[in-house]
Amino acid sequence: MAGEESAFWLRSLENSHCRTLQAIPDPPGAVQIKQKIMKKTPDAKPWIKSVGLKITAPSLKDNTADIDRLIKGIKKELETEEIGIDFSMVKRLPRVLREYNYRGDAVVFEDQNSWHLIDIFPSGSANNIYVLAVDLGTSTVVVRLMALSTQETMDETSFKNPQNEIGKDILTRIHFSAQEGGLSKLQSLLIKKLNKEIRALAKKHDISPDSVVGMSVAGNTTMTHLFLGLDPYWICREPYIPVINKPALLMSAEIGLAINPQAPILIFPNVGSYFGGDLIAGILVSDMMQQSDVSFFVDVGTNAEVVIGNSDWLMACAGAAGPALEGGVASMGMMAGPGVIDKVIIDPETLEIRIRTIENHPPVGICGSGLIDLVAQLYLSGMIDLRGKYVKARCRDRLADIDGIKHLIVVPSEDSGTGQPLTLSQPDIDALMRSKAAMYTILTFISNTVNIPMSEISRFYVAGTFGSYIQPHSAITIGMIPDLPLETYVPLGNSSLKGASNALLSVRARDEIFRIRDQITYLELNVNQEFMNLFSAAKFIPHTDRSLFPSVKVRTS
Amino acid sequence: MAGEESAFWLRSLENSHCRTLQAIPDPPGAVQIKQKIMKKTPDAKPWIKSVGLKITAPSLKDNTADIDRLIKGIKKELETEEIGIDFSMVKRLPRVLREYNYRGDAVVFEDQNSWHLIDIFPSGSANNIYVLAVDLGTSTVVVRLMALSTQETMDETSFKNPQNEIGKDILTRIHFSAQEGGLSKLQSLLIKKLNKEIRALAKKHDISPDSVVGMSVAGNTTMTHLFLGLDPYWICREPYIPVINKPALLMSAEIGLAINPQAPILIFPNVGSYFGGDLIAGILVSDMMQQSDVSFFVDVGTNAEVVIGNSDWLMACAGAAGPALEGGVASMGMMAGPGVIDKVIIDPETLEIRIRTIENHPPVGICGSGLIDLVAQLYLSGMIDLRGKYVKARCRDRLADIDGIKHLIVVPSEDSGTGQPLTLSQPDIDALMRSKAAMYTILTFISNTVNIPMSEISRFYVAGTFGSYIQPHSAITIGMIPDLPLETYVPLGNSSLKGASNALLSVRARDEIFRIRDQITYLELNVNQEFMNLFSAAKFIPHTDRSLFPSVKVRTS
Repeated sequence: MAGEESAFWLRSLENSHCRTLQAIPDPPGAVQIKQKIMKKTPDAKPWIKSVGLKITAPSLKDNTADIDRLIKGIKKELETEEIGIDFSMVKRLPRVLREYNYRGDAVVFEDQNSWHLIDIFPSGSANNIYVLAVDLGTSTVVVRLMALSTQETMDETSFKNPQNEIGKDILTRIHFSAQEGGLSKLQSLLIKKLNKEIRALAKKHDISPDSVVGMSVAGNTTMTHLFLGLDPYWICREPYIPVINKPALLMSAEIGLAINPQAPILIFPNVGSYFGGDLIAGILVSDMMQQSDVSFFVDVGTNAEVVIGNSDWLMACAGAAGPALEGGVASMGMMAGPGVIDKVIIDPETLEIRIRTIENHPPVGICGSGLIDLVAQLYLSGMIDLRGKYVKARCRDRLADIDGIKHLIVVPSEDSGTGQPLTLSQPDIDALMRSKAAMYTILTFISNTVNIPMSEISRFYVAGTFGSYIQPHSAITIGMIPDLPLETYVPLGNSSLKGASNALLSVRARDEIFRIRDQITYLELNVNQEFMNLFSAAKFIPHTDRSLFPSVKVRTS
Repeated sequence: MAGEESAFWLRSLENSHCRTLQAIPDPPGAVQIKQKIMKKTPDAKPWIKSVGLKITAPSLKDNTADIDRLIKGIKKELETEEIGIDFSMVKRLPRVLREYNYRGDAVVFEDQNSWHLIDIFPSGSANNIYVLAVDLGTSTVVVRLMALSTQETMDETSFKNPQNEIGKDILTRIHFSAQEGGLSKLQSLLIKKLNKEIRALAKKHDISPDSVVGMSVAGNTTMTHLFLGLDPYWICREPYIPVINKPALLMSAEIGLAINPQAPILIFPNVGSYFGGDLIAGILVSDMMQQSDVSFFVDVGTNAEVVIGNSDWLMACAGAAGPALEGGVASMGMMAGPGVIDKVIIDPETLEIRIRTIENHPPVGICGSGLIDLVAQLYLSGMIDLRGKYVKARCRDRLADIDGIKHLIVVPSEDSGTGQPLTLSQPDIDALMRSKAAMYTILTFISNTVNIPMSEISRFYVAGTFGSYIQPHSAITIGMIPDLPLETYVPLGNSSLKGASNALLSVRARDEIFRIRDQITYLELNVNQEFMNLFSAAKFIPHTDRSLFPSVKVRTS
């Protein structure tokens, strides 16, 4: 979002007056995402498509049954052996065929090498057929509307996952689902809200819900279970197994979606309880499985999920990175949104703190990537030491004591959008230190396991909003990610949504997600002595072994 | 029914006093049916079966998802590549697998070379799994309960088709279905009644409806449409096309049957509007497609349906035979049931009329085969002439004039179960004459068309209740069927029910019904001059060309 603004609300907090800072560029990811969204791939071979029908009308000489007549018509166009027609369609067809005078556009989908009829539309409807890709996030759901024939994105809408009212985190929802009626409540909250948003999108574009003929959904394993109404009980209990790993295509009517009842719903598969379809979507978008060089793929949230591999193999690992990077944990932390600080520069000489906020609004908080920027800058300016502790001599009067805890006043109340000062406490930094240490430890652990040194990593893909806004330089500075050339880091933006879109539009991409799933070896993270040693070493800025981070220039004051 | 009784209520009507007649044997068909019902075919390769499961319980070392764990377990037993699991099963499985401690009997069915899960039962349930075969008649529905593992018939129940309350004949029902809500009313009448009967059967045998895991349904094209809720509108309108000829397997839940919701429902295919699944079931049971010799297959009702062919080809033809043979048309006509006359012998010397009734009850009417017997005996005793007209000199005082129409008193009121005399009017005989002429004409027409003389017919299969009770000798006497050696005639009994049973229990039989369907060439019956000439010639007893019926010895009085 920030990247789409041409002017920034910039503020010098030193001396409490404004200063423009043209030097802070767009987050590189933001621009790239936009390009990827707009990129058409109309050459991709689709598995949902529209075929024009010319069926011979019945006569005494040819009294083939309606359904056989239709099947013959579709077979001719598709050059296929079998066409599946759901029973509910069989009931409607006689009327529809006659109404359209045995012409029309049949919309079909392919599944396991056979074709199935979704619906028949009047001739010439081919350009008015749509599909929806859904990024089913624990916090936020994003829906993308695309035209089937051109594969172009028409619109996107995002909304808070309505299950937040039950619980913000996954565990609360899993526990709630074990209550009488809990699971169906969670499912229906989600489906109702999703349907409302779909109807609004359809109305906005003057689209009939029946003309939406397919949907794909990428989410983590628990969210996928709750979407399908599958019991997530065992996901969080030993031995942590999901009900299903590879859901077959569903029909829209089976879960009551407000689109064509026969529309196929592609649910992204998962590798296990802790490695869901959202990550598989990300791996798809990264294209790392098409490369012979080894890449990293990282998604950071409450958990850090890490995948390493190439066209021959994939290994995945997930671990608690701590919630320090999620909105709402640090006292001034928030999810990205207007007024949220996403970039910070501190002049090492004057110690002036310059910030950039999203959409140029007065500052109201800081997002994960902003926090990394802030801590990196605090370190480079000597305001915190290598353990992440405030250096009183440098912070001086910006350091306040609130209830016995040290707080740095990042934005004084007079400049804040909330009317209150925005502060960063010592425990906030400590939490970030643990998170960044966990992240780096997991990366080290997995690269040790496959015996590939970090220096041989050709690409480091970073998924999600976090990946879009993060300044790799700052993340390297605090020792969260390895000290690789900056061009190694590739932000993927909302790779869950992009992956969902790609798999919905292309046979190759759809097949690829199952290939990815089957290819992944999941590495259980054993929190043993080796891990703890790695973790302890990573709890410094940038690391106890400075030779790992040659690019980080430490201020010697 | 009559065939299962060992004693008969026999009565001499001559002189109005009783006489026992041991000489009248069981209808041969009845006995044969019973033998066929009891005949086990446990060697038939089934397409619905139960497999014992031993699934490895989840552990930290093997945290495969529940569904994948199950699929693996079934695959191992079946040696198959794919197992389809319906989404509603996916939802239930985690609980079921744990409840059964990862043991159990999985019941599966095969469709188009892939296997699908129906349900899982506790270990050791294999002998308590059932299937139902349904003969879906316009007038009567018959349901047979069979054990899946032994393929043995456990029970049968038959009941009036509840759609009779809308209309006794098919056309009335088709017209009714075009009314607002008419189609769904017809469907729900049938499904509700069927469910009631299924529940009663289940209760009687202490069976859970969920343990009924499959059903097959053989009926004519219109009845099949009404069962499925498919619009029959075009079946009776030019160019007479059904909605569907080859329905795919349905799931029980799709039409709301009171058996396992995942049970597959095999619906017999049809050839067209006038050639339904009941006839395909009959051809299956006749086995005529396994023979190199040419056979006839005949089903007589309102229409006479005739099939001729062998292992290489099948040709079918249907024509109105007139309703004379159906219950309720002749003044004393009824459907077979207790007290209904099914056999008649008239002593050519004394003209004593001896009758046999079903279940030995006092006579209340006569069924189609009884009527044929009666008319043949009237002819052989000289009481009617070769045009079917009453011969007053022979009938004497048994002939009454009611409203100017001649009636033969077959059973005087004092011997009748109704308290009224049972009489046969001249118009009743005239109607039968037209029916028998139509039947013979259709047989001649189709054998002329394929250029195979009647004398080369090796088997003449007669379907239905009519086939079970008919005395071929009498039908030949009146010239309804060709004068072939008596052993040529093979009654099939309820071949619709038998065919439905066979196709439900065996892969070979199931595949065969679709092969039969595809093999049949349907011959439109053109009522042209040639046909009318054949028809006129057949309106005599036995025929104008007596050389066609050498075995019929005419009484010369």
